[in-house]
Amino acid sequence: VSADPQAGAALTPALTLQPVGRVVSPVTRLDQAPRQGDEGAPVCAIDLDPAILAAAGDLIPGQQVILLTWLHVADRQTLQVHPRGDPNRPPLGVFSTRSADRPNPIGLHTVRVLHVSGGRLTVEGLEAIDGTPVIDIKPILGPIQAR
Amino acid sequence: VSADPQAGAALTPALTLQPVGRVVSPVTRLDQAPRQGDEGAPVCAIDLDPAILAAAGDLIPGQQVILLTWLHVADRQTLQVHPRGDPNRPPLGVFSTRSADRPNPIGLHTVRVLHVSGGRLTVEGLEAIDGTPVIDIKPILGPIQAR
Repeated sequence: VSADPQAGAALTPALTLQPVGRVVSPVTRLDQAPRQGDEGAPVCAIDLDPAILAAAGDLIPGQQVILLTWLHVADRQTLQVHPRGDPNRPPLGVFSTRSADRPNPIGLHTVRVLHVSGGRLTVEGLEAIDGTPVIDIKPILGPIQAR
Repeated sequence: VSADPQAGAALTPALTLQPVGRVVSPVTRLDQAPRQGDEGAPVCAIDLDPAILAAAGDLIPGQQVILLTWLHVADRQTLQVHPRGDPNRPPLGVFSTRSADRPNPIGLHTVRVLHVSGGRLTVEGLEAIDGTPVIDIKPILGPIQAR
């Protein structure tokens, strides 16, 4: 099932994201990337935009944070997928999956900050390929951990 | 991991979000909105873009989901804030807070789906004012329930 890229667009104006950083990772291809961060993601780095460094000034090594990314190689027309790519499983609407392929391919990750140095964060637990734009960083709040 | 930290994110082109729905809520002003969803948010609705309805076709009443919104009245130039608006608390970088004011004002909410009817979801636990664009919906993943 594919979206009609024109339908509905006129009613809701598009919004503009400005990346605040990007992922620097040894993983450069989708087929090397683990599907979830607890399935073997390597240590990688986030290089922050110098213009927004003050926003990151209170991040602390050891802290777990929520990272939002833009999964830039995703297919934005995909509305249904087979879970985990298994054709034997019935297709699900992408809002019921963590598929990268979805209308707005935002990645939601829980990662641990290992080091903070200048404009670079070193993190563990991030399943995103090299060059992935980072769009937000949030602290974890409350009993329900968003991951 | 190696890269030139100066090569950075400022060169990264802007990205375009297309809203997938919008919030319909009795709360129309920021000063009426609870700061977190567990602090008295009213039941409200999400009207989905008809073009992406297939993405939402497997959402189930009773289910908790993660909702991503675009906090459209936020100030995107703000990099530091006093937590919970209290001037007696020292300012923090916004990446260490859930302030709506941040470079990309994405709201991250955990809500419970109450009803699914046509293109409308009724949800509880959402702290967002009327008209807030919805940009993504994701399932909550636990240590066992992975899909």
